[in-house]
Order: sequence, then C-alpha cells, then structure tokens
Amino acid sequence: MLSKNQIKLIKSLGQKKGRQQEGMFVVEGIKGISEFLNSNYRLKNLYTTQPIFDAPDELVIEISEAELKKISALKNPNTGLAIFEIPDQKNTQTSGLIVALDDVRDPGNLGTIIRLCDWYGITDLICSLNTVDCYNAKVVQATMGSLTRINVQYLDLNAYLKTQKTTVFGAFLDGENIYTSELPNEGVIVLGNEANGISESIEDQVTRKVTIPQFGKIKKTESLNVANATAILLSEFKRRSIEK
Amino acid sequence: MLSKNQIKLIKSLGQKKGRQQEGMFVVEGIKGISEFLNSNYRLKNLYTTQPIFDAPDELVIEISEAELKKISALKNPNTGLAIFEIPDQKNTQTSGLIVALDDVRDPGNLGTIIRLCDWYGITDLICSLNTVDCYNAKVVQATMGSLTRINVQYLDLNAYLKTQKTTVFGAFLDGENIYTSELPNEGVIVLGNEANGISESIEDQVTRKVTIPQFGKIKKTESLNVANATAILLSEFKRRSIEK
Repeated sequence: MLSKNQIKLIKSLGQKKGRQQEGMFVVEGIKGISEFLNSNYRLKNLYTTQPIFDAPDELVIEISEAELKKISALKNPNTGLAIFEIPDQKNTQTSGLIVALDDVRDPGNLGTIIRLCDWYGITDLICSLNTVDCYNAKVVQATMGSLTRINVQYLDLNAYLKTQKTTVFGAFLDGENIYTSELPNEGVIVLGNEANGISESIEDQVTRKVTIPQFGKIKKTESLNVANATAILLSEFKRRSIEK
Repeated sequence: MLSKNQIKLIKSLGQKKGRQQEGMFVVEGIKGISEFLNSNYRLKNLYTTQPIFDAPDELVIEISEAELKKISALKNPNTGLAIFEIPDQKNTQTSGLIVALDDVRDPGNLGTIIRLCDWYGITDLICSLNTVDCYNAKVVQATMGSLTRINVQYLDLNAYLKTQKTTVFGAFLDGENIYTSELPNEGVIVLGNEANGISESIEDQVTRKVTIPQFGKIKKTESLNVANATAILLSEFKRRSIEK
C-alpha cells in the first residue's frame, strides 16, 4: 500500500527543487533499476509490482499496477519505481580526457552525452550550473544505466576552467579541423548550449578551438546537434590513442 | 481569418495518415519556413502573424496570434505555420555513400540523422517502411532545415539491398573495428532500430559488419544511441576521404 506522504514525496522528486531538498531521485523500469542496484548508489525505497529485484527486503514495498501507474511519470510504467540517494559530488580526476558542458539544456542530449562518455571511457563530466539536472527522470532514462558509471559534477564552469593547467578544447564552427590536428590524450573538451554554443566568458578560457568540418558541395547546415558533435569529437580523440 | 476547413486540414496533417491523404506537411517557425521557401519544396499556404516571409502574396494568409496558437503544435508558436507539398520520391544516386535505416522510430533520432547526412555531404537516405515518417512535425523540426537538402526515400529495405552491387555495411556490436578497418568512399551504411538493432532479414544482406569499439576499463554500456552511432560512422568514413 502506498501512503499519501509517499505519493507526495515521489511527485516532488519530479522537480529539480524537490530533488535538491530531499537529496533523492527516481529511477524507473527493470533495466534502469537493476543497473542502479548494481552500482554504488544507495537505495532508499523500491516500489514494485513484482518481487524480482535484488534489493534488501526492508526497502521493498509491493504495490499494485494501479498504484504504480499513479506514481510513474511514464506512459507505460514498467514493473518498478525506485528512489535512490543523490551522492555527494566527487572531485574530478586530474588526468586524461574530461568533457565539460556549457549550459546544455535538453535532457535527451545530456543523457546521450553521459552514455557516450561511458562508451569512450571518459569518467568525468563537468556541467555548468545551468546545464539540465542529471537526476531529471528523462536524463536518467536516456543514459540507459551509464549514469551509474560517470562522475557528473555541477560547478561554476568558468572558475573551474581557470584553474586548469591542461589544454581546454572548445567545439566551434571556426576552429582547427579535428581530422588533421594533433589531438592529445589529455585535456578538457567543452561543448556549448544547443542554441547559442559556447558562451563568451567560457570562450575566453578555451586554449584550442576545434571544428568538425562540413563535407559535400553545399555547405548550408548551421551546426550539428550537441550530442552528435560530442560523439564525433570523442571518437576522434580516442581513435588517436589506438594509433599511439 | 481562418476557416473551419483550414483548421481541420492543418490538424489532419499532424497524423501520418492525413499527410499521406493530402500529400502535404506542416513546417513551423521563422527559420524552418524560410529554409523550405528557399528550397525546391512547393508552398501550398503560409499562415503568419507578420508579413516577413518571401512568399507569393496569394498563398499568404495573415492571422492573429490567437489563431496561430490554435493551429500550432508548438508550446510557443513562432510567427508562422506553412503547408508544403510532399514531393514525389526521387531515385537514389548510384555512387558514393548512402545511409539506410532499418525501422528507426524516434522522430528526434531521424531528424538529427538527416542533419548529419547534410553535414557529411550524404545526399541519399533510405528508410525502411516502418521508419518514422520524415514529414512528422518533430522530425522536420529536428532537421533544422536539412530535410530540404536530403533525398529521403521510403522503400522495402530488404528488396532494395538485394539489388545493391556495392558493399552493404551494417552497424553491429560484433563487427570489424571501424578505426582499424579499410573503409571505402562507396557503399550503403545500415543502422538499426533503437531497441532491437538491425533485423535478421536485413542482417542477411549485410556484407561487412562494422563496430564502434568501446574504450575504458569497464565495458558495460550496452549500445550507443543510433544517431550518435551514425555520427561516429559518418565521421570515420568521411575522414578517410581526406586522407586519400
């Protein structure tokens, strides 16, 4: 059985403010919940219609399909809804490649960028304070479990970049051609907002502007989607490490 | 002024069935409409709150903000809504690189794949019959105008691939490493459905399975988003053409 207070809590976690106040977030669906249960994330409660999850009994609350429907944000709820604790921010590693986002706003973009970092062995993702919250349900969903393996930090991006001694790469439309430039195994790769790109103050911190060149006769495309640009940049940086 | 029949027609174009019956589709927003007006697409009607578009007077209908709100599918309608004719399907070119999609269902994915094709100078995109309709409003929106420059064809993908004499590449989790394989300037690159990948019947037509290798110590990520996989593959195929 679900209490009114439980329903109220879960609904409040649908908003960033609620998540920050409670220090918790929601994961839905069998696959997502299983990935988080198998990670370092701490489970607070698991609401499920079937006792199929590997979770401590005292945290599991069996509910009906109708009850799950009531608390789920999905059109087609899938077996369970779990509440996990938002972990404390960990410090970034100091070597290797780091991805940094300057106000990326679309949850699907952040989610697939987290998935890309995971694929390419990037362990740290830095987000400016106006980047969409990684514990937003749509982001969690889009990461397909990769959020459990990536250290996402929200911080003042400008201040952070000022302290960096490593190369700060920025994705621009008018930079060095990534296919023909020397790309190292270390550095921060900055990607900008969907509509406005990298902001001026962050641009000042960029030490190397890089660009993904356009091909074909007609060059009219204005830009690439930020997640696709991240995919291409990570592919190109990481490919070089095979060659070395 | 908007008539009831006009409203009814515009609403019907929100569905694939309506678009197919009428042979028309909707484009919204200043940028999108301008891109289509500057292309070979034929305008049927333009509803706008401001006479800022370069379109034949007899096709332009000035409406109020309230009327635009009534016909728009967007939360924040932007100045205009245009109806264009769906062109006849053109045959594919027979040389160069072609991208083919096997039942890609997400409008955002198809939209950004069309944008990627445009960026990388791919002029032909083949879609299986169950791939999401490229004249779906969300797809049109996500292409950011690139749809005006890409020849998108819907056809029986299996039958199409059977007639191909060129190499058919397929993106799989267990193929040749794309970073270390020889990749030609010609061929069809097939990408599969978001949940199920490339179907068995299409797999039979694939002559070279290729894979984007995972990096890092822990290799747990199940797959990449299909648009990101397309981005990385096109980047890798096209990069080689610079080297040659």
